[in-house]
Formats: sequence, C-alpha cells, structure tokens
Amino acid sequence: MNSRRDFLQKIGLSALALHLAPISGWANGTDHHNEIYDGPVLRVAIMGLGSYGTRVAEAMQTCTKAKLVGVISGTPSKVKEWQSKYKIPEKNCYNYENFDNIKSNPDIDAVYVITPNGLHHDQVIRVAKAGKHAICEKPMAVNAREGQEMVDACKKANVKLLVGYRMHFEPKTLEVIRMRKAGEFGKILFFQGLCGFTIGDPTQWRLNKQLSGGGSIMDIGIYAINGSRYMTGEDPVWVTAQETKTDNVKFKEGVDETIQFQLGFPSGAVASCLSTYTMNNLDRFFLNGEKGFAELLPSTGYGPIMGHTHKGELTQPVTVHQTVQMDQMAGIIFQNKQPVVPIDGEEAVKDLKIIDAIYLAAKTGTKVSIKL
Amino acid sequence: MNSRRDFLQKIGLSALALHLAPISGWANGTDHHNEIYDGPVLRVAIMGLGSYGTRVAEAMQTCTKAKLVGVISGTPSKVKEWQSKYKIPEKNCYNYENFDNIKSNPDIDAVYVITPNGLHHDQVIRVAKAGKHAICEKPMAVNAREGQEMVDACKKANVKLLVGYRMHFEPKTLEVIRMRKAGEFGKILFFQGLCGFTIGDPTQWRLNKQLSGGGSIMDIGIYAINGSRYMTGEDPVWVTAQETKTDNVKFKEGVDETIQFQLGFPSGAVASCLSTYTMNNLDRFFLNGEKGFAELLPSTGYGPIMGHTHKGELTQPVTVHQTVQMDQMAGIIFQNKQPVVPIDGEEAVKDLKIIDAIYLAAKTGTKVSIKL
Repeated sequence: MNSRRDFLQKIGLSALALHLAPISGWANGTDHHNEIYDGPVLRVAIMGLGSYGTRVAEAMQTCTKAKLVGVISGTPSKVKEWQSKYKIPEKNCYNYENFDNIKSNPDIDAVYVITPNGLHHDQVIRVAKAGKHAICEKPMAVNAREGQEMVDACKKANVKLLVGYRMHFEPKTLEVIRMRKAGEFGKILFFQGLCGFTIGDPTQWRLNKQLSGGGSIMDIGIYAINGSRYMTGEDPVWVTAQETKTDNVKFKEGVDETIQFQLGFPSGAVASCLSTYTMNNLDRFFLNGEKGFAELLPSTGYGPIMGHTHKGELTQPVTVHQTVQMDQMAGIIFQNKQPVVPIDGEEAVKDLKIIDAIYLAAKTGTKVSIKL
Repeated sequence: MNSRRDFLQKIGLSALALHLAPISGWANGTDHHNEIYDGPVLRVAIMGLGSYGTRVAEAMQTCTKAKLVGVISGTPSKVKEWQSKYKIPEKNCYNYENFDNIKSNPDIDAVYVITPNGLHHDQVIRVAKAGKHAICEKPMAVNAREGQEMVDACKKANVKLLVGYRMHFEPKTLEVIRMRKAGEFGKILFFQGLCGFTIGDPTQWRLNKQLSGGGSIMDIGIYAINGSRYMTGEDPVWVTAQETKTDNVKFKEGVDETIQFQLGFPSGAVASCLSTYTMNNLDRFFLNGEKGFAELLPSTGYGPIMGHTHKGELTQPVTVHQTVQMDQMAGIIFQNKQPVVPIDGEEAVKDLKIIDAIYLAAKTGTKVSIKL
C-alpha cells in the first residue's frame, strides 16, 4: 500500500539514496560550507520510530551539529533495532509510559516528536515539563488552541519549541524568498499551492480522525498553507474553502479528502490552493508578481526541489532537507540564530489558525476572517 | 498602451508572422491536409474592424473554405483601408445604420460580429433577421438571458449561430481531449485554469461595463470557464467565487479585476480557476486524472500552444487558430459537420450561465448551483 512517505519518495529522486552533501552553512549565506564546527552538538531523542522518524534518523547521520542519541517508542523490537543501528545506549531508551524520566538524563538536549498529530499536544507538554527542548513534526497540533497550549507550556518550562518546517531551509525555496524580498517579482499578486497525493492503506492513522485531527489538510495541505505565507511574505486575512468527498468509506466524518481553499492577503494578493488525498501529479507552487514569477515543481517533496523564475532555472544545490533542518535547529537552540522563515511554535500556531479557519469556511460555506 | 490583443500576441511568437500553414483538414483527422477543396466557400463580412477583426481578416487570407468579402463599420476611413487591402467591393460595405440591407446581398453568407460584448445581442439578432448566418466573438453576450434570445432568434430565422471558440480546433487541445476520451488520464479529478493579463489603457471598452458586460471574466476568464468543460468533459453543477479589487479607479463598479472561482462537477471532479486583469505570466491549464495529467502552457494565447502530458511533450502542429476556425465553420455551416467540441450558440449560453453564476457567487459569497 502507498503511504505518504512512499509517495513523497517517488515524486523525486531519493535524496538519501544519492548521499548528497548537506549544506552545513546557514541558509542566509553568512556561514561557510566547509567551516569546522566546534560548538555544542544538539543531542536528540526521536519519539516515534515510524517511516518519517526513520528518515530523520538516517538524515541525521550526516549532521555536524546534531546527533541522534536516544529513542522513545512503544515497540521494544524497534528500539532494539535502532539501538544496534545507531549505537544508542540503553539508558537513552524510553517508552511512552516512562519518558518523563528523561528529565534526569543529562545526555539528551531535545526530543523530536514524530508521532501521529493527535498525540503531539500531550507529548510535547510532557517533554517541556521534563525540561528538554521540543522539536515537533508538523502539523504541530490538531487545532490552534492545542498549539497555543504547547507554546505556553514550553515558554513556562523555558525550553525551545521548534517545528519540522524543513522547507524553510531548502535552497531554491530560500532563493525565491530572497528574490521576493529584493523586489525582483515586484508587487506580489498571486500564489498557488497544489498539494496532494493518492493515499493508500485505509487503516493508517492519517485516516483516523482521532489520531490525525483531520485529513489531507493536516498532512499535505499544510505545505500550501505555510507556503502561501513564506512565498507571499504576508499573513492571510480571509479564507474561503470548498470540500469535496468522493469516497465516504475511506474518508470518514472529519477526515477531508479534497479541499480547495482561497486566501486573501492585506496587500490584495490572493492565493488559490488545493489539498487532496486523491490525486498525484501535484506538488506545485506558483508565485506571481507584477514584475515576474517563480514556479517550484516539485515544491515540497523530499526529492530534489526544482523550479524556475522569469529569470531562468533555479540552480541552488540539492540538499537532504532533514539533515539541514537538524543542523540549523542546533544553531537556533544553542546560539539563538534566527532562520529566514521562523520555525517556532508561534509560526505553527499561525498555520493551525488557518487550518481551523479552512475547516470552518468549508463547513459553513462562508468567508472566514483570520487574525494571526 | 497595452491591449488584450497586444498581450496575447506577446505571450508567444506571433503565429501570423511565421506564416504557418493552417491545418485545412478536420481536426478529428478524417480529412486530409492536401485535399483539393471544391465545395462552397463561406463568404464572410466582418462587423467591427478593431484589432481582433484585423487579426481574423489577416488569418482568413490563407483560408481555403472561407473568404472575407464584406465589412460593417462605423468608421469610413477604416472601410476604405480594408476595401483596398482585401479587395472588398463597395456593394459589400455597410455601416451600423444600414447593415440590415445585407439581406438583399446574395454575395454574403455570414457576418462575423467582432464588436464590444454589449453590442453582440442586438447585432446578431439583426444579422439573423437579415437571413445571414451569424458568427459571434465570445463572450457571445453579457448574460445567459441575452444569449438565449440570440439562439432563439437565429433558430427562428433558420440561420446558424456559431461562436469564435478558436481553441476547439487547436491540435494540442484536441489531443488532450482525445486522450481524456480514450481514458488515458483515468478518472478526471481536477482542472486548473489560470487566465489573465495586465490590462492597459483604462479608457478601452473592455473596462466600460455597458460595452463589456463585466470585467476580466468576460474577456479572459471565459477561457478557463469553457476550458474547464472541454478539458474535464463535464458540465459543472456548482460554483463558488471570490472577487478581489485592488484598483477601484481603473476597475469600476461591475468591472471585475480578479476573480477566483471553483467549480464542482457531477463526477466529483473539481476545478480551481483564476481570472484577472492585473497579472501576466498566467495562461495555464492543468488537467489531472487518476492515471495521468496534461498541462498546456500557454493554453489559450494566439502564439503557439505548448504542453505536455504524463506521456511527454505534445508535438501536434502549430496552427493559425483563426484560419482553421473559419475553414471549419464553412464545413459546419454548409455540410453540417460537427466539431469535436461544439461552437454553437447553445455552447455559448452554457458559458454565459456559468458567468452569471460566478458573478452571483462572488456577490453573495455562497455556493451557487448551476443547471446547464
């Protein structure tokens, strides 16, 4: 059966298989590729050893500033496998019952929560209470209220809360953002984000409302939502949305199959987006301005991002997104570095507010105002 | 100042300048390119000698089945110019007051109405009453009610009513339609049509509600509307729409600047479209099915249409759209031939019903049902 991860792998070459060198320098170009790093290394425990957790673990093998040192899992056999594969000591292995004990473990700095969406809220708050920095896969939570509680808990515990927005470090994406900031597209007028894939196994947690918090919007539409903001450089002020369901068995109540949504921005720019679990051949971003345009295709998959602008092809290097992300997170946590586009809990809450508004707009058929 | 026609010329190579050979055979491939034509020639008078009328006149110079033989214009100097350029006899020249007299002219078979949208209704009905076949540029009218009256008038007068849907004869477009009918895309899931350009001269008739009947939707959005039907092979059953206006001076009350609209089809397929007078770099069609996709870019401009599908690049020949259209119209009028996609008044009324629904949806913010 297809899984989302399988699909994302298929839509481009497997970056992992290519053993591509990660960019170790900062995305803004102030650091150098071949710098020798002698700063602190971010020691990370991964919570949730599924397919994406595995991808992150593999990618971290080439990190220079971050290191996989622990695991949290409910499956002892997986823990054993990871221990052996990544040389993880017994004392850094936890399960979902006892991981609060991580508090007294001085060899772990941060926990990367890569579990089903519906579990993030409680797990991240437990991580915070254990005094560890929390890294959380997106969507950070299943709604903005839960997301805000996570932000508050981390603030209270004086730990960082970062979210796995891997595109915020992707070189071609950053080049488009640089061009936009430099005015090379002129006034921004339109963004289009088409995100989706044909989801396989109907029994997977992504199709279980309690675990996923929703459907395609949560899992893949969030790329268009977040992308609409970093591509245009604005936060939307209204949203309209239309839901279409062709398969009521696979996509049960509360699990969206296909949602079209439109966003309006303060400048007058508009966005037109599609999120779906029923089609492949998407993964397209298009940004249009008065003076030029940018197109990313594929735009958010794991494989090489490709794209062009009115000036020609984008030739920035191909990176392993998760390797770069984890290295950058070390700098954010230890040196308070600021990425070009934020990846903190507040950024995630903005996306969750938009998701809340999309669901409300789809349900009511009305234009919903957004205040971020 | 930019005009729409200037823009459409710019977005691709000028097909006219290339002196490309038109396809004289039928688009469905049953006729041959080099056939010797000895059937009746459609003798056409053009009403409205503006930039598009000029384009049609030029394109008709290489027609084999249609011939420009007359003009109807309110500008005597233009009439003189055309008479000299195209060898049009004095007796085939009319103005807007006296063109009903065309009734008694045995040397004209049809009148191609290429005037501002708001004038089509009355002019086409006068053409029908004069007993001549009417060819009308799109949009055929400014609303469905007027359109239906035109259809009824032509039926009553026993003359044909054809509309200038030039894309219905464009080879790459027809190949996508053939592939869709053959099931090569599988079940159709999604259509996207992005149509627009930055309109220039604020004094032009296209920005005058009385003459244009609306704004960008009338002029360029209609390509996405009509395209959504011939690309998916279905007629929509609902529409939602969002209007955005950033310039209230240039785009007055009733003249839309930018409208996003979404369509739902009986099969569950959806469409996401954009119509605008405020951005270039658009002219994109994307059709997505369960088994494959097609992309046309540019999709409806005058220059060479380009595109690809999941099978590769579309390599069908480049044609001068207006030449092929006029030759094909001769066959439709004299031999009752049926094009792959209809180009008659009923087809145009369907688009006008969708336009009515889009304006209503944008105004009310509701999902509007459509019955075509």
